[in-house]
Amino acid sequence: MESAARGSVIGLLTDFGTDDPFVGVMKAVIWSRCPGAAIADLTHAVPPQNVAEGAFWLERTFRWFAAGSIFVAVVDPGVGTARRALAIAAHDRVFLGPDNGLLAAAVSSDPRRRVYEIDVAKTGLPVPSRTFHGRDVFAPVAAELASGRIRPSDVGPAQEDVAPSPLPPLDVDPGQVRGTIVTVDRFGNLITNITVESIAAIERPHVRVAEHDFPILETYADVASGDCLALLNAFGTVEVAQRDGSAASSLRLGRGASAVVRSGAG
Amino acid sequence: MESAARGSVIGLLTDFGTDDPFVGVMKAVIWSRCPGAAIADLTHAVPPQNVAEGAFWLERTFRWFAAGSIFVAVVDPGVGTARRALAIAAHDRVFLGPDNGLLAAAVSSDPRRRVYEIDVAKTGLPVPSRTFHGRDVFAPVAAELASGRIRPSDVGPAQEDVAPSPLPPLDVDPGQVRGTIVTVDRFGNLITNITVESIAAIERPHVRVAEHDFPILETYADVASGDCLALLNAFGTVEVAQRDGSAASSLRLGRGASAVVRSGAG
Amino acid sequence: MESAARGSVIGLLTDFGTDDPFVGVMKAVIWSRCPGAAIADLTHAVPPQNVAEGAFWLERTFRWFAAGSIFVAVVDPGVGTARRALAIAAHDRVFLGPDNGLLAAAVSSDPRRRVYEIDVAKTGLPVPSRTFHGRDVFAPVAAELASGRIRPSDVGPAQEDVAPSPLPPLDVDPGQVRGTIVTVDRFGNLITNITVESIAAIERPHVRVAEHDFPILETYADVASGDCLALLNAFGTVEVAQRDGSAASSLRLGRGASAVVRSGAG
Repeated sequence: MESAARGSVIGLLTDFGTDDPFVGVMKAVIWSRCPGAAIADLTHAVPPQNVAEGAFWLERTFRWFAAGSIFVAVVDPGVGTARRALAIAAHDRVFLGPDNGLLAAAVSSDPRRRVYEIDVAKTGLPVPSRTFHGRDVFAPVAAELASGRIRPSDVGPAQEDVAPSPLPPLDVDPGQVRGTIVTVDRFGNLITNITVESIAAIERPHVRVAEHDFPILETYADVASGDCLALLNAFGTVEVAQRDGSAASSLRLGRGASAVVRSGAG
Repeated sequence: MESAARGSVIGLLTDFGTDDPFVGVMKAVIWSRCPGAAIADLTHAVPPQNVAEGAFWLERTFRWFAAGSIFVAVVDPGVGTARRALAIAAHDRVFLGPDNGLLAAAVSSDPRRRVYEIDVAKTGLPVPSRTFHGRDVFAPVAAELASGRIRPSDVGPAQEDVAPSPLPPLDVDPGQVRGTIVTVDRFGNLITNITVESIAAIERPHVRVAEHDFPILETYADVASGDCLALLNAFGTVEVAQRDGSAASSLRLGRGASAVVRSGAG
Repeated sequence: MESAARGSVIGLLTDFGTDDPFVGVMKAVIWSRCPGAAIADLTHAVPPQNVAEGAFWLERTFRWFAAGSIFVAVVDPGVGTARRALAIAAHDRVFLGPDNGLLAAAVSSDPRRRVYEIDVAKTGLPVPSRTFHGRDVFAPVAAELASGRIRPSDVGPAQEDVAPSPLPPLDVDPGQVRGTIVTVDRFGNLITNITVESIAAIERPHVRVAEHDFPILETYADVASGDCLALLNAFGTVEVAQRDGSAASSLRLGRGASAVVRSGAG
């Protein structure tokens, strides 16, 4: 990102929750350095320190933000240790966060990504606290980038690459893809990391979770009220849902459970 | 709304919660098409698929938004079915949402309302997902309206009228008005749909809920700490509250319970 | 604040929660009077009517907002009574809220503070409701201030001073400081009101909470996963935390518990 594009936004993704003033203070810091920046809360409800879930949502959502947008992603159990803080230019956007795999899924699909380690001294920022780099490192760097005063390459030395994603990788075989329920949304939908692309070659795909088997249908209304189904959700992955109900409650399934897609033909 | 008025805002009301990135992505879409639009979260905590509660809050709150404001209301159990998507110009504002009664209470009091069905093809939007029209239909239409590039009449064909509200209607008799506890707020206040106007002719009004009877007083401080009372709340309806406590907990009452206002004279 | 400074923001701190549309309506009111104002939610999750916790967070966070920022703080069990509504110019910022101690901790450290009682009639605002001064008094006054149309001294008569803070004061003796766990954050960290300044003279400080004793270390990573520790948090007070866990759950401690810092030497 060489200059802020029309419609560029700072997207925030953390495990801070919104009950405490952490996020509000990050916005105050951003606006003190870049008045009027548009800030969108992606989610602050990543389960505490669940880097994999944060990585999943960041990768699945960043394309909805205009080119030029900047992401501040902070799920950071290693804050205060020597783990690197990164600024990554990828997909015409900038991703800021700790180097613990949180950014990997989003940026690894861009072969032209450029990775920089944030060197606090070089940026001229005050000495950060040991526990809140969202406020003291990532928010001010995002604001400086959004204001156009600095570019990603100004934050510190270029790096070879980033820590790998903690997301369990898809296990793709001919005729079968095995993944994981990564998150459960407010409606109790069981959201897997099995992408629509990964199952493109499977005819009449069915999803198996625990002892249940569901064909992948088009929309909730394809089954009767109270019935469960599988579908390709609006973020491009397979999910298991219940019409007018919570699949998580009804099926007693949640994060971490295995899911397999294979052909239901014959 | 022919052009964006000074102070116009996009108000969001959904049952999406804020734990998942649904709302953040809607904002990203709005800002990608209308940079800098002011977006106010009215509530995202409508109980899942509770159209009546969403309709109540939309009707009770829209007047606090400047003329020219645009509402995106999405409580949409029928997403993916043939239910219409609407844009309604009413009360000098625009209301966007599914045609399931969610918008009816807000717009039906404006005899000059104009109702249009959103025709996605006509708007030039990409083909929407089957499950997330908040992001794929309503957010981009709101942004196009807010930017002034289109007007409500540009989104599709004019319609005769809208689906009726699922809100239980008030039962108004001389000397008695019967309504319902529509929602419970964070403080445990039991909020009914009985409006101040509907009980104007009742002298010394009392509220009866379950086996309890409370006179309608002015403010919480009119009773002792721990006592319950009824009052006309800041949204113009009757509520039952407990000073320094939760009426919902103390009275063991909640959504759907009946409430009756009649004269406590004599 | 004589005019809105670069980067000035309206910060909101309430006990309203975000499930109900209270906060969204406050923003609508602000934007109807001051379009485009930057509004940061500090927190809306102050426990209902817990003035002390609101006062603590306001005092600990306001300095992260640019000079010229305006705070709307509403934890207001006395709404509708004769309690004063205040506008206080202090620390190059303006603090608005009820005169119940909520603002005292933030403003009392500025000897040049100027305190004004908001006189609704003088401000030209409509007659407020009896129950929602956040919307009817504080939000519109904040917007008028942010727009530069009025100054704090325009809202009403100057006052001698404010109601004292309900926060339990620190008990500072040579070699020992006694305070309180004021709040518990999302991670289960037990946050006290014992400031870093108050314990500066204590060598090798330890914290005693219930029957536990923890040395004050630098960061979470200074102990093994699962162990508890004390540290100076990013808001400048002592907290007790558990690495990769919740100190509140593990130690079965919460708001109101006593905490003592003394030297662990010898």
